[in-house]
Amino acid sequence: APLAGELRCRCPRTVTGMIPPRRLARLELIAEGPHCAVPEVIATTKQGQTVCLSPAATWVKPENGKNRDLKHF
Amino acid sequence: APLAGELRCRCPRTVTGMIPPRRLARLELIAEGPHCAVPEVIATTKQGQTVCLSPAATWVKPENGKNRDLKHF
Repeated sequence: APLAGELRCRCPRTVTGMIPPRRLARLELIAEGPHCAVPEVIATTKQGQTVCLSPAATWVKPENGKNRDLKHF
Repeated sequence: APLAGELRCRCPRTVTGMIPPRRLARLELIAEGPHCAVPEVIATTKQGQTVCLSPAATWVKPENGKNRDLKHF
């Protein structure tokens, strides 16, 4: 069932530019589902700014193992 | 500044057991900060269940590159 209050995609656009993880307060990975056909990655900075990251951005994508940038979490 | 409404740790305890990522609707990585001295990883399953994962759990920790489990996101 879609999460309460989230009946649509939350990211009208995404950025691929890297945000230094030490500036991040929170990172949300939301799987695609009935509410949105694409997975979404939403970063909240320590200044409270919310940015939608492209799931394909190399520094976000964990599967190729090379990018260790998320290790700061 | 701590995120609104989150002025303390959200995970009284964590589990290290693996949750198949395909069962996950959302994964939140919250950095330690003024509100909580430790990073927290909060998973929400597609059934709406919320589980606190241990950031050290090998299947969650992205930095050693071997665990590709999160690639489903």
